[in-house]
Amino acid sequence: MRVAAVLAGGKGLRMGTAVPKQYLEILGVPVIIRSINAFIKNPEIDMCIVSVAADYISYVSELIKKHISSDKDIFVIEGGETRGDTLLSVLRFMEDKSILNESIVLTHDAVRPFVTDRIISDNIRAAEKYGACNTCVTAVDTILISSDGEFIESVPDRRTVFHAQTPQSFNARKLYELIKKMSEEDFEKLTDGCSVFTFHNEKVNIVRGENFNIKITYPDDIKRAEDIIIQYFN
Amino acid sequence: MRVAAVLAGGKGLRMGTAVPKQYLEILGVPVIIRSINAFIKNPEIDMCIVSVAADYISYVSELIKKHISSDKDIFVIEGGETRGDTLLSVLRFMEDKSILNESIVLTHDAVRPFVTDRIISDNIRAAEKYGACNTCVTAVDTILISSDGEFIESVPDRRTVFHAQTPQSFNARKLYELIKKMSEEDFEKLTDGCSVFTFHNEKVNIVRGENFNIKITYPDDIKRAEDIIIQYFN
Repeated sequence: MRVAAVLAGGKGLRMGTAVPKQYLEILGVPVIIRSINAFIKNPEIDMCIVSVAADYISYVSELIKKHISSDKDIFVIEGGETRGDTLLSVLRFMEDKSILNESIVLTHDAVRPFVTDRIISDNIRAAEKYGACNTCVTAVDTILISSDGEFIESVPDRRTVFHAQTPQSFNARKLYELIKKMSEEDFEKLTDGCSVFTFHNEKVNIVRGENFNIKITYPDDIKRAEDIIIQYFN
Repeated sequence: MRVAAVLAGGKGLRMGTAVPKQYLEILGVPVIIRSINAFIKNPEIDMCIVSVAADYISYVSELIKKHISSDKDIFVIEGGETRGDTLLSVLRFMEDKSILNESIVLTHDAVRPFVTDRIISDNIRAAEKYGACNTCVTAVDTILISSDGEFIESVPDRRTVFHAQTPQSFNARKLYELIKKMSEEDFEKLTDGCSVFTFHNEKVNIVRGENFNIKITYPDDIKRAEDIIIQYFN
């Protein structure tokens, strides 16, 4: 099976809005619904698991009922405190449903509503072939490294620098086994599935993203998102 | 003296427009004029040097005449083939004018029209104190390093990752001396003034930028720039 896991555990407090940013609307449709729809409408995706904070489960279920009509299963489950815990809750849910083996799981930020069919297909191919992949775009800006935030330590060659987007996609069983091999302490430090693979020195393939596959992070991003829809999704 | 050097040498072919992107208009005002104006209007800036491709010198001079009225000197000079050569042409011009010593030079991308007075002041302070500084913002996305563009090599801790913006500001004489100490071959590999300092293991201070201090790189950025003006500059 190809399972999309839309991760919306976070409270999204950075935006300073009353509503977490995944629930804000872009041209009348909530961000999270746009993200779920991008996967559910893709013919290669069999199922969607949406992981949210406990107090949003019924709210998100209602949103889905209102906005999405699909024969495919969409499960709304409770995420964890951290991104790692949320990932684990998805994998445990898949195990309980006996769909962990031979599945590809595409984990995706709920606040990234502009993932395309091409990106989804490329993720599935790469996860099947390599076990793990991360959607990336090349860096436009120069990136600098500074441990103290005061002085520049190093400037990596721009040709080697990539911005991670999502989806990150995995052989679900392999990801779960790698997590189980880690100490709780090590796992807590990691923020995503790809870090689990790199922690074990396992290869993570790079899949090409899109510059418009943005994360809704700041208030301006809603306006920007509207422009992206007008330009790319009409 | 505090000298702003607005660097517009590039032909800006990435955008796929007939006109290089620094000459596109945002709400009726060309990008390059907005960048020059940000400095010229700042009371701490004494002079502006605008470095452009040879065939744009008269065009830019006309634009400045049309859009800017200021008592301060604005010189339009010919830039080089590379960003490094363009930087050198500015420093040589300053030497010819006998203003290289005891000057701070603030080098700035012509395609970054939203530099603020606060950023300019902080650059002047940092360049005076440390000899070199770079305007930066913290990374929102996770950054990945990959030499082959196929598999992830490392994931630097996000707290240590910064996006370089401009201005980059320098003790002008010191920058010039450091460049003269380098072989032509080494210098050609570098893309900016800060790299000259790091090449010599000299400290470069980090000045806080703004997320809206964007570079006009892609066609969508013009629309985004209009939104930034409406939100931050009205």
